Order: sequence, then C-alpha cells, then structure tokens
Amino acid sequence: MNIPDFHLRLRRVGIDTYKENVAYLHRDCPIYRAEGFQALAKVQINSTAMDQQVLAVLNVASDERIMATDELGLSEQAFEQLGLAEGETVCISHAIPPESLNAVHRKIAGEHLDGADFTGIMQDVVDNRYSRMEMSAFLVACSENGMERDEILALTQAMVDTGERLDWGEPLVADKHCIGGIPGNRTTMLVVPIVAAHGMLIPKTSSRAITSPSGTADTMETLAHVQLNLARLRKIVRHERGCLAWGGTARLAPADDMLISVERPLALDSPGQMVASILSKKIAAGCTHLLIDIPVGPSAKVHGMNDALRLRKMFEYVGDRSGLNLEVVITNGEQPIGRGIGPVLEARDVILVLENDPEAPSDLREKALRLAGRILEFDPDVRGGQGYAIARDILETGRAMKKMQAIIAAQGMNKTAMKPGVLVKEILASESGYVTGIDNLQMARIARLAGAPMDKGAGVDLLKKLGDPVSEGEALYRIHAEFPSDFEFAQDLAAKGDGYTIGAVPPAPRYFPAL
Amino acid sequence: MNIPDFHLRLRRVGIDTYKENVAYLHRDCPIYRAEGFQALAKVQINSTAMDQQVLAVLNVASDERIMATDELGLSEQAFEQLGLAEGETVCISHAIPPESLNAVHRKIAGEHLDGADFTGIMQDVVDNRYSRMEMSAFLVACSENGMERDEILALTQAMVDTGERLDWGEPLVADKHCIGGIPGNRTTMLVVPIVAAHGMLIPKTSSRAITSPSGTADTMETLAHVQLNLARLRKIVRHERGCLAWGGTARLAPADDMLISVERPLALDSPGQMVASILSKKIAAGCTHLLIDIPVGPSAKVHGMNDALRLRKMFEYVGDRSGLNLEVVITNGEQPIGRGIGPVLEARDVILVLENDPEAPSDLREKALRLAGRILEFDPDVRGGQGYAIARDILETGRAMKKMQAIIAAQGMNKTAMKPGVLVKEILASESGYVTGIDNLQMARIARLAGAPMDKGAGVDLLKKLGDPVSEGEALYRIHAEFPSDFEFAQDLAAKGDGYTIGAVPPAPRYFPAL
Repeated sequence: MNIPDFHLRLRRVGIDTYKENVAYLHRDCPIYRAEGFQALAKVQINSTAMDQQVLAVLNVASDERIMATDELGLSEQAFEQLGLAEGETVCISHAIPPESLNAVHRKIAGEHLDGADFTGIMQDVVDNRYSRMEMSAFLVACSENGMERDEILALTQAMVDTGERLDWGEPLVADKHCIGGIPGNRTTMLVVPIVAAHGMLIPKTSSRAITSPSGTADTMETLAHVQLNLARLRKIVRHERGCLAWGGTARLAPADDMLISVERPLALDSPGQMVASILSKKIAAGCTHLLIDIPVGPSAKVHGMNDALRLRKMFEYVGDRSGLNLEVVITNGEQPIGRGIGPVLEARDVILVLENDPEAPSDLREKALRLAGRILEFDPDVRGGQGYAIARDILETGRAMKKMQAIIAAQGMNKTAMKPGVLVKEILASESGYVTGIDNLQMARIARLAGAPMDKGAGVDLLKKLGDPVSEGEALYRIHAEFPSDFEFAQDLAAKGDGYTIGAVPPAPRYFPAL
Repeated sequence: MNIPDFHLRLRRVGIDTYKENVAYLHRDCPIYRAEGFQALAKVQINSTAMDQQVLAVLNVASDERIMATDELGLSEQAFEQLGLAEGETVCISHAIPPESLNAVHRKIAGEHLDGADFTGIMQDVVDNRYSRMEMSAFLVACSENGMERDEILALTQAMVDTGERLDWGEPLVADKHCIGGIPGNRTTMLVVPIVAAHGMLIPKTSSRAITSPSGTADTMETLAHVQLNLARLRKIVRHERGCLAWGGTARLAPADDMLISVERPLALDSPGQMVASILSKKIAAGCTHLLIDIPVGPSAKVHGMNDALRLRKMFEYVGDRSGLNLEVVITNGEQPIGRGIGPVLEARDVILVLENDPEAPSDLREKALRLAGRILEFDPDVRGGQGYAIARDILETGRAMKKMQAIIAAQGMNKTAMKPGVLVKEILASESGYVTGIDNLQMARIARLAGAPMDKGAGVDLLKKLGDPVSEGEALYRIHAEFPSDFEFAQDLAAKGDGYTIGAVPPAPRYFPAL
C-alpha cells in the first residue's frame, strides 16, 4: 500500500491457467519490491478509473520477454474479465480476502453452514475470488462426513444460483443420470430414443470421458455431431423430443465446474459433493423428472448396498426439496455393461440393440429397457409397472431405431465411418472354470491405455462375462488399438493383470432391487 | 500416452511460481492435443535418457513469444530441478500421483496416520510432488481437531527429516520462541545478550514479519546485518555465545516452509500445525533447551487460559518425545509489549532497556528478565528460582549492553542512522477515564498501514498503556510514517477505530502463572 498511485501498463500473457486468475509482475518492478507482496498473494488489479477490477494470484516474472518492469500481466481469463485493452494503465493492490472465506474457516473448525454461507461461497467462487488452494480447502472441509444433508441442499441451490437456468416450457422434462464407474454402460443412447419416441421430452446432455475410457458424448460422437449451441439444441428437441448432445456449452451451475476443476486433480469424490454437483446441473438444465442410477459392485464407485442406500436417501432429500420428481434405482455394477469398452465398440453395441440383432448384448438391452420403463412411468398416463412393456414395444417395433436415426440426422451425421482399431490382441484364459469376477477399474485402465477415448476405435471387446464357462487358452477379450505404442502399453498392463477372476464354480447370483 | 516418443525442446520460462513447479505447453503442440491432458494435470518431464525427471502442474500457453509449439517450458524452480540446459530434448507424460496421496485421502476420510505416512507425505512435499491444491487438502484434513498428538509428533519428526540438522557440538544449546501475535514484543533482543553474557550458547535465528508490523529480524536489522551465511553464523556464535540473525538462509525442515507457503495465503493456523512447525525448526537448528512463550489475551492468538493449557500440553508431549528440554510459559498478552510498534521504534525500546534508562518500558524489561531467568535455569549450576536475579544483575551491570554491542559488531553494524518516521500524528482520547483495553490486532494494522515493516521508521508509539488514566483530548499514541499516502491510510484507519477502550474505572488485574 506504499505506492498506491504507481501505474502499470496492462499486458495480456498468453497463458491459460484454467479457471484461476494469475497476475504477473516483473521481479524488478518497483511496486513489487516496495510492497513486499508475498508470493501467491491475492492481488486486486484496478483500472485507473477504479470502475473495473479483477482478483488474481501473483506470480513473479524474471524475463523481460514475458514482462517488462513497468508492465502488469494477466493470464487469459483474468485479462478477459478485466475487460481493458493491452497497454491501458492499471494499478495493483493487496486483495481484501473474500468475506465468504470466514465461512470456510468456520467449516474447517467443524461448524454447520447455512444457505447464506453457501450462497456467499459459491458466488465468490464463480467470481474468481477463490484461488485453487482456497477451493481445495473448502472441498476438503466439506468432504466425507463434513456436510449434513441440509447443507448439501443449501450447496446445491447455491450452485444453481450461480448460472443460467433453462426453461423448456413444458411441465415434464425427463432426464437420467448414472453416477458412473461402469465401463460400457451406454444405456443413455437407448433410453433417449425410446423415451423421445414415446413423446416425452428428454433433452439429454452428457459429458465426455474424464477418467473413463468413454463418456456418452464420446460414444455418440462416433455417430453424430454432439457439440451444438443452445439455439440448435432447442430446435432439435422441439422437433424430435430428445437429443444426445455434449453438455459443455451452456453456462449451467458454473460454480460446479470450478469446484470439479479442483476435485478432479485431487481425486476428491465425496457423496455430498456428488449429489450437489449432479442435482445442481440437472436443475439448472430445466429437468423436472429425474432417474438416478447407482450401480453397486466390488469395483464400482459404490461397493455395498448400505452405501448405496445412504446415497439414495441423500439424493431423495435434496431432490424432493428442490422441486424435482426424483427416482433412484440401485443396479448391478459387478461388471462392465455390454461387450464394447471405448467409443466405437460401445456404439456398435448400442446399434445392435436398436436393430434388435440377436447378437446384441442382452445385459445392455435389459438395463436400458428397465431404465426407460421407469422414466416412462413419470408420464401420468402410464400405469405403474407398465413402463417396461411400453419401452420394449418401442424398441421391438423399430420405433426406437427410427427415432435414433432422426436424432442423428438432426444433430448432423458423422460421415467418417469409424471402425474398431485394426491392431487386435486376444487375451486368453490362463485356466479353465467360470468367470467369477471382472474388475471394472482394470478393464477401464486397459481400454484407456489402448487409446480410448481419444482414438475412437481403441478399447476392449469382452468375449466372456460373469458366469460364463471358459477353457484354458480361450479368449476372454480383445484389445483394439490404432497405434503400436498404445497397443503395447495396453498389452503390458493386461499381462500384469487381465482383470478377470476364474473360479471352479459359477458365481452365486446377487440380488438387486427390481427396477 | 499416445505419442510417448514425441520430443520437445526444453525452454526456461522466467516465471517464479513459488514452490510449485509449472510446465508450459503451447495449445497447438501436437502432444497436448493428442494426449488430451487435463488442465492442471500433473505431468512428468523426462530427459530423453530417462535419467532426470521432474513433476509439474500443466499450464497452457497460446502465445508464441512465451512458448513455441515444439517447446516445453518450465518455471524457474522446475527448470533448476530438472538440471538440463535450454534447447535439450525432453519428453512429457502423465505423472503417476505420489503414493503418499493415499494417506492424505485416508486422513480426509478421518483415519489416523502413522509415522511412515507422515514421512512419505513430507518427503513427497519436499520433492515437489505435491501441487498447492494437494498441500491445501492435506493441511485442511490435518487442521483443527484433525490430528491426535502422536500424529503431531510424527509430523514434527517427518518434517525434521526433510532437511539438514545443525550440530553445535555442545550439550546445552538454548533457544526461545514466542508463538506471536503481540506487537512490540521484542524480548528476544534482550534475552539473547543476557543469556550469552552468562556464557550459555544461544544461536538465535528469527523470522521477518509476515503479517505483523515487525519481526525480530526486521527490528534487529535497524542495528546490524542479519542476513548471515551459516559459516559466518557459526563463527559469531563461537566467539560471542549468541547471535541475532535472520533464519531464512539454512535449509532447516524445508517441508515446513512449503506447508507455510500454503497455510499463509489460506490463513490456516491450527494448533497442531503450529506445534509441528515450531518444534521441527528448533530441532533441526540443533536446539536442546527451549523456552516457549504463549501470550494470552482477548486479541492475542490464544484467547483463554484453557486453550493455552491445551497448547502447552501439546508442546510438552511432542517436545519430550523429541529429546528436547522444553519449558512453556503462559504470559500476559492483553496489550502490546513496550511502547514502540515498528522496527525503529521497537529497537529504541530495546536500547533503552539495555541502557537501564529510567524511561525504558518497564513491561518489556520485566518480561525479558523473567524469560531470560527461566532460560538461565536450564544451566544445571543455577539454582531453581535464581535465574531472574542473575538476569537482572547481568542487565543492571551493563554486561547485557556490552554483549549486545559485541554481537552487533560481529554481525556488522548498520551504519545508516535510522529514525522514527518524520510524519507524526497524535491520536487523542475521545473521553476521560482509564485505559481498559488495547486491541493488539488493530494496533498492528495501523502500524502496517503506516508502512511498517518495509519503512523501518514507520509504526506506532504508545503513550498510554492498560490502566493508565487519560483525559479527553490527551494523546493515546503517535503514528509515525515516512510517506504521505501511508500516513493518510493509517490515520483513516485510526479514525475508524483507534484500538483503545476507555472505561470509568481501572481494569481489574488478571492473573497469570508466575514465570
């Protein structure tokens, strides 16, 4: 604060620091020396008229190519937020810490936060007033058993309030969401055409893979364009009653994206944050009726029925109080769904089901029909228990396939024919018996090493599923790759652990609640 | 992992990201596009011979001035750690997360960590395998009531093991430490000459101010050089039995510095981390006998006697099990110590005490004598209860002043005569009565705004202390500054709140354990 009138020339520094604003000062800049700014200090940059400002974390440059001693640099996002031109005059001062950090400290001390606290924190997060370190502190303080369910509700609503909220102008807007973790689980690409063919509105947006071998958006992309702007999306949904698009374009619950940008590298994955993240996105997307799928299995995200039930209650508590019609189903997550793992291989499975091909994976077909049936029962005219039969009828009469073709045509068909990777290796059983276990995590790792989801044809094609008899030397699955180096990496990993367990007797069936 | 053989030219990017390694790739670099690296991903950079490597967080550049598309940039610290020359060939891959992050996740989940866990975490921290976000996660998980005392002990020892450990070759190496928070509390500059004059070894290193108006190193610097290398320090200590140097040069418990670089911007200040931080530094510095000062008061770091006792037990538990001879004293932290707040003003108080000047602040003199007395009793030849009298004798006979002069001469006298800031404003009492409260935090804020510690002469000079009678319009304290803008800032803050409470009757004396 010694030289408040010291002026600097603004410079755009072409570095993308991803959702964290960074300011750069040269080490020999007089104000840097005079102020004794701490490294990593939060600073505030003001226009000389003091009418525009931005907060940033300070980095120190020592290279005149990057920054002269009379310049102040801003990373790309910070530069855009300040909204001034390069060369304009700015001044810098210590930032006043965002007031909501007091609430974060209270949370760290074990206190209970209320709606105003969460609103304050989320608003400051989305205004870029939090550094990544501060977001990390908030997330850890709120992780595990750190949040009561009324706090999760408050967090959800605070996240919704940080962004836009879509309105589809209809009383019933259906959606589904799976908490993830099961490779090949592409039911969405079957549920959407079935539900839309029935006439129910299902404007589905999905994510790309983050840590998995493929997200629904990656798999759908092998068939059609998925990157659609909101106007285009609305038009398609109005015509077809559904879509299968990538969800990254709209500004829905942006605070959630910012928290995720920290949760992901930290591998933080607490139930409360998951519930708030999923439901805030759905509420902001204008969803009114939502089906949540919680797969349970030893290598799924949720390992046991008790944890699944606890998570279900959390979803129900927050959903009910947020005006959502929410149903939660707990499904079998003991093994991958379908045969293919990876964009092209999964799309193949989906098309086989839509074509009613006898070779279609029956588990994928059955799960999709059951989920679609439950969503159809959101329709007041559908009698309880009749959804499944309606869904099956829509699939078997080819109306689901026709709807899928219409959606693909509306989104723009992908004209590049995509095929499974040409480098193929069969992984063989080392003993005879029955398949008693398939490790979801290991199969996902092998598929990723083979190149999925970047190389669309890469992945794993399962030839044996749980309970299948196998003989020594028989193929368990095939690895597909497009590049030799990936191909080798994937084979090396499969040689270390093929992900399969073979037993002398078939595995005992496990019981899940009927859908 | 798609193009593992893709080579990049190494470039040094002149940006200091302060204890976090950052790697820069151009947005159009083929491997960036092919890999689909997540923003903020941790990456590993290898020399082509794969014999040198460094971990870093990825930032994306879009400006060819910073980074060409076939280059890989490293921030300064990362560049030095990799140890290759600019232009050499390197390759980049996804980093394998440090194994010790599993322990951090267990801690977040509420588990108890053991010594091996803390050793793993601290070693990975000091090897720059943790991002700032990950350090933040660790610190929050361990904050507040997150650590049992055996975990604090394990953390302390793990931090010591990350760096060097000094050995002074003597069985009694004394030190003192105050947990801070009390402006003007410069007892160290009196304790060291008294203890050294007695002949006890006290190689004192202190910190500069971080959030306070002055650290002992800042105040000492107005009299002598404090930035000394270890060889010089050893020589001075051998001759004089003591020193008053800045502690930032040796590589003692470097993991602690890295944690502090995250704790500070987060304003995390948990008792467990404090104990581990202080004791690890002292153990690494070769201290054998340590006196800890915990001031208690409404605006001190510790507000009540119960918290102080809890903290004392924590220090004792860890100290005893680390082989330290440790004593903890709980002192009166209701108001600033002495009159001056700010480097020059505090040095003036210290010199007045050393000169046995009747104008010397009696509270500073008394506290310093009591602390020095307790340290002198570490000497087996000093009878319990006799330390204070010995210390007073050393001070009153001028031996303390003589020792201080010898230390100043050995460290190198500061020949620039330093004076209190020439801009002076008296802050007046708005009513008559007795001083019943002085807010440590507000006085520190005013002194900092006035320019302390950067402007050595800036600060606050207290004219009234607790219990003093005042008349309306009488001066409570003076603000000193060197620059008009700071002078105004400080006056504005004092106008908003002068930090003094005036009551109709004198405050009741509070009782603290006798030293």
